[in-house]
Amino acid sequence: MSEAEARSRRVRGGGGAVRRAERTAVSIETARYIERNIPNFEVLTEEALEIIETNAETILEEVGVNFVQNPAALDRWRAAGADVEGERVRIPRGLARKLCATAPSRIVQHARNPERTVEIGGKSLVLAPVYGPPFVRDMEGGRRYATMEDFRNFVRLGYMSKWLHHSGGTVCEPTDIPVNKRHLDMLHAHMTLSDKPFMGSVTEPSRAQDSVDMCNILFGADFVQQNTVMTSLINVNSPMTFDDVMMGSLEVYAANNQACILSPFIVGGAMAPVSVAGTLTQVLAEVLAGIAYSQLVRPGAPMIFGAFVTSIDMNSGAPTFGTPEAAHITYGAGQLARRMGLPYRSSGSFNGSKLPDAQAAYETANSLNVGLLAGVNFMLHSCGWLEGGLVSSFEKFVMDADQLGTLHHLARGVEIDTNAQAMDAIREVGPGGHYLGCAHTQANFKTAFWRSDLFDYKPFETWSEDGARDTMMLANARVRKLLNDYRQPALDPGIAEALTAYVARRKSEMPDAFS
Amino acid sequence: MSEAEARSRRVRGGGGAVRRAERTAVSIETARYIERNIPNFEVLTEEALEIIETNAETILEEVGVNFVQNPAALDRWRAAGADVEGERVRIPRGLARKLCATAPSRIVQHARNPERTVEIGGKSLVLAPVYGPPFVRDMEGGRRYATMEDFRNFVRLGYMSKWLHHSGGTVCEPTDIPVNKRHLDMLHAHMTLSDKPFMGSVTEPSRAQDSVDMCNILFGADFVQQNTVMTSLINVNSPMTFDDVMMGSLEVYAANNQACILSPFIVGGAMAPVSVAGTLTQVLAEVLAGIAYSQLVRPGAPMIFGAFVTSIDMNSGAPTFGTPEAAHITYGAGQLARRMGLPYRSSGSFNGSKLPDAQAAYETANSLNVGLLAGVNFMLHSCGWLEGGLVSSFEKFVMDADQLGTLHHLARGVEIDTNAQAMDAIREVGPGGHYLGCAHTQANFKTAFWRSDLFDYKPFETWSEDGARDTMMLANARVRKLLNDYRQPALDPGIAEALTAYVARRKSEMPDAFS
Repeated sequence: MSEAEARSRRVRGGGGAVRRAERTAVSIETARYIERNIPNFEVLTEEALEIIETNAETILEEVGVNFVQNPAALDRWRAAGADVEGERVRIPRGLARKLCATAPSRIVQHARNPERTVEIGGKSLVLAPVYGPPFVRDMEGGRRYATMEDFRNFVRLGYMSKWLHHSGGTVCEPTDIPVNKRHLDMLHAHMTLSDKPFMGSVTEPSRAQDSVDMCNILFGADFVQQNTVMTSLINVNSPMTFDDVMMGSLEVYAANNQACILSPFIVGGAMAPVSVAGTLTQVLAEVLAGIAYSQLVRPGAPMIFGAFVTSIDMNSGAPTFGTPEAAHITYGAGQLARRMGLPYRSSGSFNGSKLPDAQAAYETANSLNVGLLAGVNFMLHSCGWLEGGLVSSFEKFVMDADQLGTLHHLARGVEIDTNAQAMDAIREVGPGGHYLGCAHTQANFKTAFWRSDLFDYKPFETWSEDGARDTMMLANARVRKLLNDYRQPALDPGIAEALTAYVARRKSEMPDAFS
Repeated sequence: MSEAEARSRRVRGGGGAVRRAERTAVSIETARYIERNIPNFEVLTEEALEIIETNAETILEEVGVNFVQNPAALDRWRAAGADVEGERVRIPRGLARKLCATAPSRIVQHARNPERTVEIGGKSLVLAPVYGPPFVRDMEGGRRYATMEDFRNFVRLGYMSKWLHHSGGTVCEPTDIPVNKRHLDMLHAHMTLSDKPFMGSVTEPSRAQDSVDMCNILFGADFVQQNTVMTSLINVNSPMTFDDVMMGSLEVYAANNQACILSPFIVGGAMAPVSVAGTLTQVLAEVLAGIAYSQLVRPGAPMIFGAFVTSIDMNSGAPTFGTPEAAHITYGAGQLARRMGLPYRSSGSFNGSKLPDAQAAYETANSLNVGLLAGVNFMLHSCGWLEGGLVSSFEKFVMDADQLGTLHHLARGVEIDTNAQAMDAIREVGPGGHYLGCAHTQANFKTAFWRSDLFDYKPFETWSEDGARDTMMLANARVRKLLNDYRQPALDPGIAEALTAYVARRKSEMPDAFS
């Protein structure tokens, strides 16, 4: 399909012909979000859960939380029955949990391509890429400050990644664009270079409003008011501090029916106690307070129970990733979220390595597996994270994105129908035979096993002749191929024009600010 | 302590003074085997388990298994009530399971250093190194045929590895020693260079007998008859074939009260059906037949339910590792083993990579985590495996051995006592504070978080100045350091002399055979 043809078609609501044409045009396969057919792994006993829940209420009641520079929030809390003293909000036992009850247990986040709409909650798992790093790394350029072109390339890679359901948000910080304007370019990239769902800006309430306004152009204002089209990341300044910037953004999104992840940002030992139970208590208290607040802004606002947890290396002070303690917290927070009936965000391709090497992969695999089994519904950072979140790595992005396929297959669980039992095959082959040619193998082999699209499965000799490449080199080749194969998904030209005009107008209204 | 001093002390039965001296001498810390305080992860429903168990009995009854070139085994089966036709043994429904009931549910395997004795079964997890590769790899020498000196170095590394409980068996094949003699040198190395428990030879019944005889020297013959001092690996020639070499070795070990792992060796799609349920059915049938047979040799012989599972890449025919299907089988086989009341062996540092790179680490981490959560009691290959088991890698050995620490910490579960609840800390710090200096952190930080002894936790700049090393380079330095720091554990000189004499005598009785 030519570019002109593409422009002549409207994507949303364009019907079957457009979708068929789109498939021909880009031939990009994206897996449906995961619906787990396996149990969750749980590490907390009923007794432990009750202790943590009781303690979290005690913290809210006795210690309280701070809502900083936000008189409107304090007014809302006072009206709801909390004890407000300065910026400190003490919440009577049970009130926060009661307020949280109006938040929905499952969120449908619409994509402009309806086939890529996701559901967040219940047994689902939606995978979104790395968020936030100021640096990027690739084999050619090494480590360097991220630019808008890097950002666009990550969005393109995300669009091309079969196992990734979501385009994410700040896949890297485009440091060549002024701080006050870069959200416009970032949203424009997600909206035009991909057709997967995405996240809004949270770095200032006005930028959240820009995000809503741009969605009004992309989806139509009525649609946005009635449906969730963004899921944005609201971090808590742990311990127990809700700042005006994040809360101001939350207020915009909640008022517009858009989803937020309310996420304590915890480096254990620094922003929370060094113990797992203590950290979970604080996480729960913070989530209760934050999500309760969202329901004061708009009852029914879609919210996600977030937990970003890492521990600290007490020798160096560095955050560490893929550790057992982070796993315990991730499992435990999942249990707490389910008891609140809320969707759960945690885990990711976390690691502290400087390179996409074995350390990066061990730590990442630990985290990804924990995320699946912990019942995470929205996994931000599921690919591309490097160096403790300072770096978005192109090679690691495609390595992790490939590994996300294993989560899909694990989540399927075990089939037990007659075909899966394979009794005829066992009878046919018998002792000493082999299954390679038997009828059951022939009928099932194509879908039986997950297969990496990246890893090397060749014999040693062939691998040596092919250049003896390690995973980083294979990944680099895959990055180049995916970016080369990338074709932009079609978008109604009127919408595309309106988005571009909006960005230009808003930029013209602001001075450049670089900090 | 000088070598002469070391030689003057007897290790076993030497009492407290010897043990104190030993600790001073080598200052090698070894973690106790894991006792899980977390649940097992289970993927099969009760209904699925019953179907698989019923189908396995059907296979044993209708199809049967072959005991090859083993008339004594056929006689035993006939006497037990099986239907024997040529080498095919058809086992009436329920008979095999009934015979298996005399195998113990928990095995104590004694080490010559009593502090390193392990228990295999129940909630335990014992970690043993890679087994079997003909090649080794390190950064200096690349990939090459393994020698006896490589073997000794792996035993030394295993001895120095804190999180490794077991010295293993054929940590690599010492290809410079004749096939018919190398078991003697291998056992001698495990017995003298380490004081951790080890495995016996299975490559011929006479070599199993040599293993028992050498243990009689090391432990005393009475002790060996009454206690388990070896756990050896008996593979099934899947599908459903029990060869005379492996069964002959099993007969020697069972008769001498020594433990065996009865392990179907499965590449799914080749030696078993492509489906998970079909593979589990065949694995169960094979284990039932093999362990039942061991109980015909000696009721009460200690046996372990083994499952070595990998799938095949249908494009290239290569075995693949760390895949979701292998995970499902590992989880499911654990459930089947527990329902039989048998200790369970599976999982390991499996991967198909040619280098200790990111592919190796992703696949390995996937497998290690599955092994812990599947309830594995004995994890062979827990470190050092590379290239689908063709290569024992020195660097990967220390990488994996370091990661095994995460399994120990994960297995601890979550503490919920008053100290763990950390309420005083949360009250002390309050909103906006930090926990780094608080009393609770000071009291707990040393043991709160697992910390890698290998990975890089430095800031980017320091890491760059230190040579910008990847994990393989860090691991290489660690290999050199551990081998340099290695000190041989003390052993009674009379025993050492007798072992050396035994090896010399047996070697002199045989011609050199290289195949």
